[in-house]
Amino acid sequence: MSIENDRITPLHGAGGEMMGKLLAEHVLPRLQHAAPGRIDLNAMDDGATIDLPATGELVMTTDSHVVKPIFFPGGDIGTLAAAGTLNDLAVMGARPIAVSLAVIIEEDFPIADIDRIVASFAETLESADAAVICGDTKVMGRGEIDGIAINTTALGIADPAIGDADAQPGDVVLVTGTIGDHGMALLAAREEFHLETELVSDVASVWPMIAEILPLGGIHAMKDPTRGGLAAALNEMARKSGKCFEIDEQSIPLRSEVQGLSDLLGISPLTVANEGKAVVVVSPEVADRVLTTIQAHPLGKDAAIIGTVSETYPERVVLGTEVGGRRFLDMPLGDPVPRIC
Amino acid sequence: MSIENDRITPLHGAGGEMMGKLLAEHVLPRLQHAAPGRIDLNAMDDGATIDLPATGELVMTTDSHVVKPIFFPGGDIGTLAAAGTLNDLAVMGARPIAVSLAVIIEEDFPIADIDRIVASFAETLESADAAVICGDTKVMGRGEIDGIAINTTALGIADPAIGDADAQPGDVVLVTGTIGDHGMALLAAREEFHLETELVSDVASVWPMIAEILPLGGIHAMKDPTRGGLAAALNEMARKSGKCFEIDEQSIPLRSEVQGLSDLLGISPLTVANEGKAVVVVSPEVADRVLTTIQAHPLGKDAAIIGTVSETYPERVVLGTEVGGRRFLDMPLGDPVPRIC
Repeated sequence: MSIENDRITPLHGAGGEMMGKLLAEHVLPRLQHAAPGRIDLNAMDDGATIDLPATGELVMTTDSHVVKPIFFPGGDIGTLAAAGTLNDLAVMGARPIAVSLAVIIEEDFPIADIDRIVASFAETLESADAAVICGDTKVMGRGEIDGIAINTTALGIADPAIGDADAQPGDVVLVTGTIGDHGMALLAAREEFHLETELVSDVASVWPMIAEILPLGGIHAMKDPTRGGLAAALNEMARKSGKCFEIDEQSIPLRSEVQGLSDLLGISPLTVANEGKAVVVVSPEVADRVLTTIQAHPLGKDAAIIGTVSETYPERVVLGTEVGGRRFLDMPLGDPVPRIC
Repeated sequence: MSIENDRITPLHGAGGEMMGKLLAEHVLPRLQHAAPGRIDLNAMDDGATIDLPATGELVMTTDSHVVKPIFFPGGDIGTLAAAGTLNDLAVMGARPIAVSLAVIIEEDFPIADIDRIVASFAETLESADAAVICGDTKVMGRGEIDGIAINTTALGIADPAIGDADAQPGDVVLVTGTIGDHGMALLAAREEFHLETELVSDVASVWPMIAEILPLGGIHAMKDPTRGGLAAALNEMARKSGKCFEIDEQSIPLRSEVQGLSDLLGISPLTVANEGKAVVVVSPEVADRVLTTIQAHPLGKDAAIIGTVSETYPERVVLGTEVGGRRFLDMPLGDPVPRIC
């Protein structure tokens, strides 16, 4: 097989015959989910159409993905590009309608890797019943981009959308599973660490799980704890609501491998990204039903109540520790792991 | 001023306090156009909401921008990121409602350049009355991305959307101005060419101009001739409609500088990108009114009728030359200029 046939060239991103062939042979066949409008992805038009939903609010979200390494334990940049964006919709209570897929690829990138990435992307979208309707392909020269970057923007419908600012005093705070898996799995997978571990990323679309708790009502706020981890998500919710999040450190579900790596590397698992989790703030009346519903879902078996909302220290997160102490859990300056998502 | 204050660091893309500060000080203040929904950009939530329009079809489009150089005669990557995406909506007959802005920035990138780019982006959006409602910021290390890449995804409303596949025999083909300006201006601006020219990119949002011709009716297809230029746009329209596009080469508006550079470099101006033009296919009854309406707009003063649609050679573009000859204008393999947009 010649170089021209198995590697990306500048012409693959140049809007002509070669780009059309790449898309027709390696991308479009995998993205044939039923489209929500008259002009779809196969039309290869300047954009695509979406029939107006009858009721609700549209929700739009965007994420670029630059994760390193591109293939990691538990997933790859394709899984992540789909789940990362769909999860932003999910935590706003929005069912995905339409997704865009825009890739920037380095010259000489293996087309076989494109196949793998598109397959992962498509599989993750299928799990959320979401259709890609438009896309874009750009190629940069060698050394101008490190492999591949993917932007996914998604449109969903919610009735109504749930923000991250409306926590109420007395509310219960849940997480849908173990914390820090993605960040720690990525760290362990990086060449410089040479760490052998069973740890895999939690990357997954949480929409099917969230869809089951929405009908229960009483959900006041949700957030997916990605960059900056649980610490950033809780601090944002505390600041925006003006309330205090009182968290019991011992209740936060942690895998022993994550705890071990965390101790080894000196990085708190509370500040690294999760890619298949949600923080859910619910009124106390429905908390138990929400928890058991989440726990009944395959993605939510490790879900736990981790705290409550109060007015004790407005805009702050307070962590109750094992030995009975209390300390503030601050907003991190940023996720300690670069290119985590 | 310290390095930390005037250059991008990894923490600026790490989802915590530093990223929040960058956005609050350098991005959000410039993007304060009235939002179309309840949860807007200022909420800094996981996404934003859009109130359901009463009628029409939603149109969604996405484009990543990797133009080189970032600042070029006539615009910069911010102008381009806004215009490029809005123009895809415009040629589908869609008024922009909401836009996302996702940036990938190289470590050490000057924050002053971010300010310039965001200002250009905001100015171009204002010209189309479009609001940014959500965004994303990622930072890659030095040498992992060449400066900055911007994805813009936009949602618009059309009633109904106009595709690029419905040219009819007898239709008239117009272009809204001179061809090849963007591609040739970019080429001339690249360091390796050392060319002195007055040529500037045509980058602009064509929506205000297109909005004026939509009420005239009779528009069967539109396309913005970006990568691959007029040649790619015409070939796509011919293939999709199954019709023949018969183009009079002499009628194609060309600046003398573009013609000159084209001769010098041996690159056809018909195959390089335009970023402020549209190809419009209209029924013959309205062609003159559409033309004069476009010509009355500042962006359309050089608009011209360049040909007609027939059934002579299905799916092909035929170019009638100055000396009376005729030849096929083929689909280019790709735009000859890398990183043109």
